[in-house]
Amino acid sequence: MSHDRETGADLNPRWDRSGLVTAIVTDRANGELLMVAHMNADALDRTIDTGEAWFWSRSRERMWKKGETSGNVMRVVELRIDCDQDAVWLKVDPAGPACHTGERSCFYRRIEGDRLVRDA
Amino acid sequence: MSHDRETGADLNPRWDRSGLVTAIVTDRANGELLMVAHMNADALDRTIDTGEAWFWSRSRERMWKKGETSGNVMRVVELRIDCDQDAVWLKVDPAGPACHTGERSCFYRRIEGDRLVRDA
Repeated sequence: MSHDRETGADLNPRWDRSGLVTAIVTDRANGELLMVAHMNADALDRTIDTGEAWFWSRSRERMWKKGETSGNVMRVVELRIDCDQDAVWLKVDPAGPACHTGERSCFYRRIEGDRLVRDA
Repeated sequence: MSHDRETGADLNPRWDRSGLVTAIVTDRANGELLMVAHMNADALDRTIDTGEAWFWSRSRERMWKKGETSGNVMRVVELRIDCDQDAVWLKVDPAGPACHTGERSCFYRRIEGDRLVRDA
């Protein structure tokens, strides 16, 4: 692992073989994990430049802006990167549900043994 | 995407082609994102069974328990899974720094344009 990448002050993402980093999105208001997605270089640039969350869809193979159809845009309050620069953390103000199912967070089920439980 | 996987009550992880899911770890005390790692089926089972965080190391190609050398074990307070079951969320009580650099979180730098800034 590059020492510079861990200690330096230059943004130098470690793209995977598909050209992506993992993007973790939490709600700035309460720290709730809202969703996990991916960004290519263009999506990261667009996010930095506009202050709104852009991602890369692996299934649709295109860049997309969160909320482009639902209207539930995510305003990025803070953007961080991890030690080896292969994951970014977006703290956001969400305009609505983060999950395509309509749930506030994609993590709407708790694992209990081999069963999944929704919050009451 | 499987409808059952999204709405059902069965744990049925969607492993990637390497047999892994993404594991997101936050501090239950303050919601801070501590680290991002991966789990194979054995690591997920071990985590569920023991209540402590186990992962799969892609670089070392082996399962490892967080804290096995550092002593900084992570007790899992809650374990959740996302809509398409390819990412899990661990809320933990960390016994010490989560990052191998000694930082509390791996996300110790903020992105400001093309520069990285450490918190004062």
